[in-house]
Amino acid sequence: MRDMLGREEIITVGRALELIFKNLPPAFPPETSLRIEDSYKRILSRDIFSTEDLPQFARSTVDGFAVNSYDTFGATEGLPAYLRVVGEILMGAMPAFEINKSCAAKLATGGVLPEGADAVVMVEHVQQIDEKMIEVMKPVAPGENVIQAGEDIKKDELIFKKGHRLRPQDIGALAGLGITNIFIYERPRVSIISTGDEIVPADGQVRPGQIRDINSFNLAGLILEAGGEPVKRGIFNDEYNVIKNIVEESLKDSSMVLITGGSSVGTKDMTARVINDIGRPGILFHGVSIKPGKPMIGGLINNKPVFGLPGHPAAITVCFEQFIAPVLKKLSGFAGDKFADRKLTVMAKMTRNIASSSGREDHIRVSLEERDGEMWASPIFGKSGLITTLTKADGIIVIPLRKLGVEQGEVVEVRLF
Amino acid sequence: MRDMLGREEIITVGRALELIFKNLPPAFPPETSLRIEDSYKRILSRDIFSTEDLPQFARSTVDGFAVNSYDTFGATEGLPAYLRVVGEILMGAMPAFEINKSCAAKLATGGVLPEGADAVVMVEHVQQIDEKMIEVMKPVAPGENVIQAGEDIKKDELIFKKGHRLRPQDIGALAGLGITNIFIYERPRVSIISTGDEIVPADGQVRPGQIRDINSFNLAGLILEAGGEPVKRGIFNDEYNVIKNIVEESLKDSSMVLITGGSSVGTKDMTARVINDIGRPGILFHGVSIKPGKPMIGGLINNKPVFGLPGHPAAITVCFEQFIAPVLKKLSGFAGDKFADRKLTVMAKMTRNIASSSGREDHIRVSLEERDGEMWASPIFGKSGLITTLTKADGIIVIPLRKLGVEQGEVVEVRLF
Repeated sequence: MRDMLGREEIITVGRALELIFKNLPPAFPPETSLRIEDSYKRILSRDIFSTEDLPQFARSTVDGFAVNSYDTFGATEGLPAYLRVVGEILMGAMPAFEINKSCAAKLATGGVLPEGADAVVMVEHVQQIDEKMIEVMKPVAPGENVIQAGEDIKKDELIFKKGHRLRPQDIGALAGLGITNIFIYERPRVSIISTGDEIVPADGQVRPGQIRDINSFNLAGLILEAGGEPVKRGIFNDEYNVIKNIVEESLKDSSMVLITGGSSVGTKDMTARVINDIGRPGILFHGVSIKPGKPMIGGLINNKPVFGLPGHPAAITVCFEQFIAPVLKKLSGFAGDKFADRKLTVMAKMTRNIASSSGREDHIRVSLEERDGEMWASPIFGKSGLITTLTKADGIIVIPLRKLGVEQGEVVEVRLF
Repeated sequence: MRDMLGREEIITVGRALELIFKNLPPAFPPETSLRIEDSYKRILSRDIFSTEDLPQFARSTVDGFAVNSYDTFGATEGLPAYLRVVGEILMGAMPAFEINKSCAAKLATGGVLPEGADAVVMVEHVQQIDEKMIEVMKPVAPGENVIQAGEDIKKDELIFKKGHRLRPQDIGALAGLGITNIFIYERPRVSIISTGDEIVPADGQVRPGQIRDINSFNLAGLILEAGGEPVKRGIFNDEYNVIKNIVEESLKDSSMVLITGGSSVGTKDMTARVINDIGRPGILFHGVSIKPGKPMIGGLINNKPVFGLPGHPAAITVCFEQFIAPVLKKLSGFAGDKFADRKLTVMAKMTRNIASSSGREDHIRVSLEERDGEMWASPIFGKSGLITTLTKADGIIVIPLRKLGVEQGEVVEVRLF
């Protein structure tokens, strides 16, 4: 993207995201079936309807006596209703008897209401006179202390929509209905390509001038956190054909490709050329008004997102949060919920002034400390090439595009890691 | 726990937690070693020290020219400093030459600073006259655009303390230091024992009067979410010897045991007896002033926490959040961070009045809706025995012990699932 004078055009974060989402066609990952016990946090690929009522019979919600509520009307401690106990209902069994007028049957929480009973008197409101007779000291309304058949879930009811992400209670509901196998989307595979002639594997020997691969490990963790499946492709030399081949290879079985490193001017241009040369529409933006992360490249190759990430560790984390996580969410089939974009934040006061240039969004890493019940945020100073500016931080604050900094004592919102 | 009149004593949530933590001796799970790529969210069982400097040499943070900063002092566009280019530094290699007075060497981001150079001039501030000569149009300070050897991490520095939970950037830092195998705590195993003569497995046949096991699936998800390893022991009849045997069996290889169901009076008493009979100190509390969840039982058997949970699905979720998650965190070896207890919350206005009894903490499930930019919370009505009161909810609000309800329009804090 160059302007009329041939200069590289830097766009805002919002505009960059807009460009990606406008060009990204709707697509869903392949589906697969899974046992519900393995489905925590997975995303449903089909609507789920109930095939039966839950519960299938009227159940008691308390320990007590199944009665006909009519028989208890007006009962008080002084003038109790006398009912004849005709039996006890065993758990897990259907009662073999009915409740006729002025009769009752003992049952526990979860027990089945017999024919003729429409309510349960809690054991606390009953005085047992002998095996065969009780005094009821408080009236019950029809349906009191009872869960009706189908009251929880009705047969043919839509329980969960396609795109819903399963929470523990959702898996419980599926179990309750006997739905133990479900269809879910596979996690989107995200390829990580590390480039740089100076980069060696984390467990390799480091010769003078070389440095170990940090970014692909940080990225793999971020991808897992965002619900993707990281696929590390390895470390590659900064050569056009090498990078082009591995990007093409990666696109075959990934939903997204991340190219990290290549932070030198020549390499950046090369990454951009590779993205433009393989498929359509190619590069969508090259340079974003964000710090760290300005040299970021974003594009689509044959409708799959490909990002070129600056090599600085702090830039990786900021660019991931801002660009890659939202795109990955869309690729995962997740229909979203009202709070899918929320991050855990805390309000804190700044311990010192920070200056920021107008015209860029500044993402400042901060550590947090509580003093006299107040939360204070201190910026972590250090170049964005230092991984410790991330490891020593508790979170990030943002100084927006048009703001010239924050002042000591100013209250800021800290997005926690 | 009975008072002087022999009545069961109900205690507050705070008091119940205090009793557990006061009696729970410090204990750590067994440790195991792991590749760092598999260690996301795992908890370190040992302090980690760096065995080397990161980086091991001074590196450039920009594309440009390595110089002696002294040679650039006073340089401007009108009066640039002229420097002789003595070579180019290749990525991943040590420079074979030194930088003498009025000399410079081309290098890219991440390139090694040669002897004699103490700063890097960005390529944007340089005019290349020919292969051998550049004009520097802006001075650099000593150390500018350079990461010094050991500036990120120093040899023998304590990087992470035992008990730290690894985030993506932490795994990146370990990779950067060549630390690819680490020791972590195993996840605490939590046994789930389902009781109730009416309960059948989720994939089993349901005969009239029976109901499928919902709670062990909800609990397994909650345990995973809290960093534990769920171990489903199965469904057992409400018989003293049966329950005692499976609790003893479970204690052999679990850090915690949860007994669910057994919500009838007789079964509750039996669960309490089992906990008291197996080991010391036994039951610590029996009944908590919380709704749902009042009949909850908590104790320790030979120093391992054992909880008896009411059978209602909503009670399971509330009791887990309030009691089991904090205990599980302590058992996991996690040293905690400043925000380990925070949950994602949103402020919302209530759509209607809710009454609550004084003397109990009311946990009300709510669904959220945005109207004209304002967030509104509506209570999900329905008995706590209904799993759908959880599946239809977005979160929970708490009405504290001494509050008699919330009013329509009142602002409440919703703890999101």
